[in-house]
Amino acid sequence: MGNIKRVRYKTKRRQIVGERPGTISIADDALKPIITVYSYNEKELVCADGHDLKVILDQFKKCKDHTHWIQIRGLNDEKLIEDIGTYLKINPLVLEDIVNTHQRPKFDEYDGYFFTVIRQVYYNADNELCNNQFSAIVKPGLIVSFEETHDEHFEAVKARLAGGKGAIRTAGPGYLCYALTDTIIDTYFVLLAHIGDELDAIEDRLYSHADKSIMYDAQQLKRTLIILRRITWPERDKINDILRSENPLITAEVKTFLKDAYDHIIQVMDLIENYKEIAGSVIDLYLSMVSNRMNEIMKVLTIISVIFIPLTFVAGIYGMNFARIDPATNKVMPDNMPELYSPHGYIYTLGGMVLIGIIQVIVFWKKGWFTKL
Amino acid sequence: MGNIKRVRYKTKRRQIVGERPGTISIADDALKPIITVYSYNEKELVCADGHDLKVILDQFKKCKDHTHWIQIRGLNDEKLIEDIGTYLKINPLVLEDIVNTHQRPKFDEYDGYFFTVIRQVYYNADNELCNNQFSAIVKPGLIVSFEETHDEHFEAVKARLAGGKGAIRTAGPGYLCYALTDTIIDTYFVLLAHIGDELDAIEDRLYSHADKSIMYDAQQLKRTLIILRRITWPERDKINDILRSENPLITAEVKTFLKDAYDHIIQVMDLIENYKEIAGSVIDLYLSMVSNRMNEIMKVLTIISVIFIPLTFVAGIYGMNFARIDPATNKVMPDNMPELYSPHGYIYTLGGMVLIGIIQVIVFWKKGWFTKL
Amino acid sequence: MGNIKRVRYKTKRRQIVGERPGTISIADDALKPIITVYSYNEKELVCADGHDLKVILDQFKKCKDHTHWIQIRGLNDEKLIEDIGTYLKINPLVLEDIVNTHQRPKFDEYDGYFFTVIRQVYYNADNELCNNQFSAIVKPGLIVSFEETHDEHFEAVKARLAGGKGAIRTAGPGYLCYALTDTIIDTYFVLLAHIGDELDAIEDRLYSHADKSIMYDAQQLKRTLIILRRITWPERDKINDILRSENPLITAEVKTFLKDAYDHIIQVMDLIENYKEIAGSVIDLYLSMVSNRMNEIMKVLTIISVIFIPLTFVAGIYGMNFARIDPATNKVMPDNMPELYSPHGYIYTLGGMVLIGIIQVIVFWKKGWFTKL
Amino acid sequence: MGNIKRVRYKTKRRQIVGERPGTISIADDALKPIITVYSYNEKELVCADGHDLKVILDQFKKCKDHTHWIQIRGLNDEKLIEDIGTYLKINPLVLEDIVNTHQRPKFDEYDGYFFTVIRQVYYNADNELCNNQFSAIVKPGLIVSFEETHDEHFEAVKARLAGGKGAIRTAGPGYLCYALTDTIIDTYFVLLAHIGDELDAIEDRLYSHADKSIMYDAQQLKRTLIILRRITWPERDKINDILRSENPLITAEVKTFLKDAYDHIIQVMDLIENYKEIAGSVIDLYLSMVSNRMNEIMKVLTIISVIFIPLTFVAGIYGMNFARIDPATNKVMPDNMPELYSPHGYIYTLGGMVLIGIIQVIVFWKKGWFTKL
Amino acid sequence: MGNIKRVRYKTKRRQIVGERPGTISIADDALKPIITVYSYNEKELVCADGHDLKVILDQFKKCKDHTHWIQIRGLNDEKLIEDIGTYLKINPLVLEDIVNTHQRPKFDEYDGYFFTVIRQVYYNADNELCNNQFSAIVKPGLIVSFEETHDEHFEAVKARLAGGKGAIRTAGPGYLCYALTDTIIDTYFVLLAHIGDELDAIEDRLYSHADKSIMYDAQQLKRTLIILRRITWPERDKINDILRSENPLITAEVKTFLKDAYDHIIQVMDLIENYKEIAGSVIDLYLSMVSNRMNEIMKVLTIISVIFIPLTFVAGIYGMNFARIDPATNKVMPDNMPELYSPHGYIYTLGGMVLIGIIQVIVFWKKGWFTKL
Repeated sequence: MGNIKRVRYKTKRRQIVGERPGTISIADDALKPIITVYSYNEKELVCADGHDLKVILDQFKKCKDHTHWIQIRGLNDEKLIEDIGTYLKINPLVLEDIVNTHQRPKFDEYDGYFFTVIRQVYYNADNELCNNQFSAIVKPGLIVSFEETHDEHFEAVKARLAGGKGAIRTAGPGYLCYALTDTIIDTYFVLLAHIGDELDAIEDRLYSHADKSIMYDAQQLKRTLIILRRITWPERDKINDILRSENPLITAEVKTFLKDAYDHIIQVMDLIENYKEIAGSVIDLYLSMVSNRMNEIMKVLTIISVIFIPLTFVAGIYGMNFARIDPATNKVMPDNMPELYSPHGYIYTLGGMVLIGIIQVIVFWKKGWFTKL
Repeated sequence: MGNIKRVRYKTKRRQIVGERPGTISIADDALKPIITVYSYNEKELVCADGHDLKVILDQFKKCKDHTHWIQIRGLNDEKLIEDIGTYLKINPLVLEDIVNTHQRPKFDEYDGYFFTVIRQVYYNADNELCNNQFSAIVKPGLIVSFEETHDEHFEAVKARLAGGKGAIRTAGPGYLCYALTDTIIDTYFVLLAHIGDELDAIEDRLYSHADKSIMYDAQQLKRTLIILRRITWPERDKINDILRSENPLITAEVKTFLKDAYDHIIQVMDLIENYKEIAGSVIDLYLSMVSNRMNEIMKVLTIISVIFIPLTFVAGIYGMNFARIDPATNKVMPDNMPELYSPHGYIYTLGGMVLIGIIQVIVFWKKGWFTKL
Repeated sequence: MGNIKRVRYKTKRRQIVGERPGTISIADDALKPIITVYSYNEKELVCADGHDLKVILDQFKKCKDHTHWIQIRGLNDEKLIEDIGTYLKINPLVLEDIVNTHQRPKFDEYDGYFFTVIRQVYYNADNELCNNQFSAIVKPGLIVSFEETHDEHFEAVKARLAGGKGAIRTAGPGYLCYALTDTIIDTYFVLLAHIGDELDAIEDRLYSHADKSIMYDAQQLKRTLIILRRITWPERDKINDILRSENPLITAEVKTFLKDAYDHIIQVMDLIENYKEIAGSVIDLYLSMVSNRMNEIMKVLTIISVIFIPLTFVAGIYGMNFARIDPATNKVMPDNMPELYSPHGYIYTLGGMVLIGIIQVIVFWKKGWFTKL
Repeated sequence: MGNIKRVRYKTKRRQIVGERPGTISIADDALKPIITVYSYNEKELVCADGHDLKVILDQFKKCKDHTHWIQIRGLNDEKLIEDIGTYLKINPLVLEDIVNTHQRPKFDEYDGYFFTVIRQVYYNADNELCNNQFSAIVKPGLIVSFEETHDEHFEAVKARLAGGKGAIRTAGPGYLCYALTDTIIDTYFVLLAHIGDELDAIEDRLYSHADKSIMYDAQQLKRTLIILRRITWPERDKINDILRSENPLITAEVKTFLKDAYDHIIQVMDLIENYKEIAGSVIDLYLSMVSNRMNEIMKVLTIISVIFIPLTFVAGIYGMNFARIDPATNKVMPDNMPELYSPHGYIYTLGGMVLIGIIQVIVFWKKGWFTKL
Repeated sequence: MGNIKRVRYKTKRRQIVGERPGTISIADDALKPIITVYSYNEKELVCADGHDLKVILDQFKKCKDHTHWIQIRGLNDEKLIEDIGTYLKINPLVLEDIVNTHQRPKFDEYDGYFFTVIRQVYYNADNELCNNQFSAIVKPGLIVSFEETHDEHFEAVKARLAGGKGAIRTAGPGYLCYALTDTIIDTYFVLLAHIGDELDAIEDRLYSHADKSIMYDAQQLKRTLIILRRITWPERDKINDILRSENPLITAEVKTFLKDAYDHIIQVMDLIENYKEIAGSVIDLYLSMVSNRMNEIMKVLTIISVIFIPLTFVAGIYGMNFARIDPATNKVMPDNMPELYSPHGYIYTLGGMVLIGIIQVIVFWKKGWFTKL
């Protein structure tokens, strides 16, 4: 219908009624996991890749006084997730939430660790809107992150880790968790900038060469904004929860930075509201434009019709065949349409028609029907 | 009118003004009760069936150190309910609420037991939306549940009871109450998945072959969503109340699971809002489509009319019968329609008509009337 | 306009600017009071009727250890109300509120007594919506109730008083005040059931034989619901205030029952919202139906017009009188409408017309103009 | 456009950017002040008139143990206001607020006095809506009130002062401040009664002889209600602030009366909401009436057109001039319009036309086009 | 499209995903900074101009017991801002916020200083809406303000500084910060007065000579109001935060004035709501006017058409060529259109037409079609 792909809201939740809580049931289209481990301290950064628990355990042995970031991309390995859960002593409900990738942003504190969820919303390579789940378990000296796709979203963070400037190598797993969260929030700005550009383009199109795709496109953007709004509100609450939390993993230093992230999410919400209002106003202006166009067309028809209707009637009158002479009897009937037999009847009639037309135009002009409204 | 059955909101409350509070007045169309008793402890699960109090008392005698789940399906037995109330020392107001099946979700604590209500919303076999009441009295070692229909909604819970894995056999009646509640919340997801599919189908229909049943169907789905929203809001408050309660029947273990149920109900609310917005946007798009179609039809009429009106008028002019020669007097009147007697009058007239038509098409095209808006 | 009487919102407040607070100014159309005194204790119920203070004082003398319910119906007796105020030592502001029958539901505690207001909303015998004030002063051993009309609303309560079953004869004036309140809330359910039936009937009419009274009727029902909503919200707050009050006249037993009344008023509010949404959806469906009907009519006109416009034009062409032979000069002009003088011109023309018509029908059918939208 | 004067919202604030706070800048169209001093105690009431500070100082000297009410109507005397400020030791910000007559209702406590603002909204003699500021400084034994116009709004209060009944002469300046506030709130009821009458009249007009002034009038009333709502909300908050204040000028007695005023302002807010909804429903009904009227007109046109279009076409067919005999060659062409030369062709044609017409009427009636929708 | 320039909402934020927090990244189109230093105490005011840190350090040396206001207009000097940050020991997050000029109004307290942001919204010389950031760092004896443009907004404050009257020279940097904030709030009133005048002009245009630019202009004003509302809400919260703060830089004296600024921002919010409602009501009235105009045009067409359709049909009937005499056979066919050969057929026909017309006019007039609705 328009330039923008249709945005679908369908939930991915699998419905098994009455299932035991804590059951790990992985969606059929989930991807196989890729595990990357980053172990770092002030002095060095050690990386390792793999597909099973072994790579993690090896790294733990090798790097004893490091902070570890275990990045797991792809969730289609029930065993791996259960093993991690057992090894790190994670509540089964948390494991269920990790694979059940429809969680709202949240921050749950457990004994000795916390669990946090944030949504990743972006247009993928096919220009379709994705709404994936990023979750992380944070323990002292350790952060395990889970993503749905194999896409790379954290190049900049990895570069900062490699560079080693700033607090990133020294401020603990809580800071890294903040850095990943803030990076995801930054992608919201990218998405919103994209939406802003689309809206601007639609509005330009509205004034230059409006067509009916405008309605459809504006509505798709509105939907995207609604999705985004639905995840930023709980995100804001989540960050607030973290700021109020007295968890030792959230140091005072991390809280200072989180306040900054809080400001960012507020700005995201502001932008969303702005863009929703533009989308709405674009739709309103488009509808008023359509109705203006129709009104103008109708008005022209009306005026032309109204002018010609009586004239055509007059022509119809003088097209009647009332006979001056009955051909059967040759009787003359002088009362039948004598105008037709007056020497200047035609001239007078045409003149009368012109007059009627002019009077009508004057009347309509007086009524202001020719003004564009 | 459409594919979806009309959703009715009619209340079933019987109106007897000024009745003594605590009076048990059963609706005329209530079903006869079926009683099933499940008595279980860590080691075994004992079941019994029946239609009166006896089966319950027998089971109590037989299974002394078990937790009992008395499932009563159908409420049309005033005596049975009164007897249970007397035997378990339940407040008459609770008994009134059990049979008056229009209660909102609630959690009321009494001395030594608590009473809870949740709504069961689902499409029945006839594809009609049902909104029934599930209520339960929970005492130490005992849960009595009341349902309106004989339908089986708790197969999965019964299977888990029989299987005996997890906390279900050991965590007391509070846990079972949670398990039943969570199972009902799971059915909301099933209902919402159904609604989501319907909405998707309606939206597909909108783009492929829109007809007027779309409006009706979308409105019925919106109603269902409104009903669902109206019961999930108090449900959320109810779970919150339970979480804040210090009732010994709600152990810390149960509360951990209830927090999970709380997340689920929040997700239900999110989905409802999502789907309400799609339903609204489907209606909006449909209406704009209808209006586009009408506008296009009107535009074609208008343009064709406006083109032919002056041409037809010209034809009318030359259809007039102003006489060149008065048949009565044979007087020649050269001023009457001399065009008709010019050798190429017809050719010129046709040419003029074509010219008028072309000029009009050019003018309308310049005004952009041929663009689809 | 429709089946339902027009609902008027006009306030009955008399506007005297700057009046001394506590002034008793009775509306002109108020009714003369009827006083009924019910004095009861566990053993007996003594009744008395009258029109002045004497009947009350007599009863006080006669029944020394009874609880008294003085029911005053009709307020048009300034002296009576002042006397009662003086005798019972009531604040003049309370007396002003009793006769100024536009108070919102409220619960005001004073030294040694409390004052409560609730609205009575019902259709009277003429099927007009009434919105009257019920107010009551409750002191230890005494309740004085004031109503605007002589209508009987408390038959059931009086029967229960006479019957003497339950708490009514023993639980004090606070319980009686609850019983009267709950009875009035019950009438809201009656009113809502009536509205629900009307809405159902309107919706049935919508699908069977819609006419323009639907709009009017739905709007009147919406108004009634708005009035009802406006009095139930403060009613809920009022009951909450009573529940939180530590007034000795509100015993713990009464509070248990009031919680039940609280649930009822919440259900009333739920029903109101339900019905408001149906009323709105009925109006929406009706409007879409009207517009569908109009669109269909317009479409038929358009298609028929567009088909006939060119055909009629062709007929007009061949109705022109371009002469083959000038009757004045007998000059033959072979270029003037030679079609008319071709042996099968008429057949060919008719054939051409049919062809044009068929082509148009095909084009319109391809454009989907014949689908019902 | 209609019966009601256009309501303007224009602010009167003078915009001087960056002015020193506390600057007294009087609007150009302010009126010269009239000062009236009322000094009263339990025994007597002494009045004095004047235009400058002298009258106030004289009265202070003359009446030593009286409460003084200094009523200043008209604010166009910078010196007077500064002198009063200096004499009574008032904060310059208060003086700025007194002359800057666009303050919202508020209650500001200062050391030894309080300052309060309330809006006076009424139709003036020219039937224009006025929205003026009433402000008052209250100190022990003294109240100074400031009004924008010379109009008399407090006749009733002055009469009560003269009469000396009730608390007015004894309860101090806090009570007088309450009395003036309550009197202004009473005028809101007068205004609302006026609006209610107007709305009723508009609604009557809607049913008897609707014209397009209805829309305009309803919109003006809505505006008035919006203005009124905008001042009652902060007024309510203000009274709440006073009730919670522990200022010794607000005695317990005054608070009892203020609770009554609080009830009044709540009633005002209720009425405003009521009337806003009627105004909205009047507009909705009017619009639906307009659209019904148009639809009916269009339907009649459509049906008449559709009936006559084929008939006129048939007449056009038989008005064609296909020649039976070529006048140039006298060749007979029997295929050209043989109907015209059939002895009963005319009768059959007329009959056919009547038949077509009847069939169309039946078809349209079957489709329900003759029902009023 | 209209008289008012299109308002754009595009954000200026640069999107660098995953950047280290505290990075100073200056927008490409930022202006080079102009530094002006005002050092004042009770006795004197010393000014200095420059483009780098040197002018500030010089002034610090020269004026030891003065309060310094360092006004920096233009932010395009990363080094300068970093140097100031280092010299004054400012948190890098604050520096990032200074150059990232999309902050919401806020008040952040740090150790030994506070940071505050307010938005400057105004029409620039090109009549485009600007929404720039004003931020300030306040330390004991020092305020550093940052603006985006070189425009002068604080002439009045500088004049008051030069004049030396009032608290400005003695009340410390907190007071100056208040004075600058209040001056910016004053510009909101100027902007709103401008919007108010535009709205009034649009409304006047609506009643005198409405055209389609009204819609566009009203929508642009609405957008401006939305932008303004979006910055006044957090501004109000910000002032509230300052009022509740116990920062020693915010003295009790400053708080008294801030309460006044708080009242101003509330008035701004009130005005915004007022104007938004007028803008909405202007759009509503305009749309109803357009639809009235169209309805009137359509009605006239309809009535004229309906009157002429049967008349034209009659003329068409008598324009048919059914032959009285077959020219080929000379057979007389008396049943073919005998009216044409009646001596007064024409007169009667014309009379019949006039009659039909009159009857129609009467019918339509009875139906009230000639009333303006």
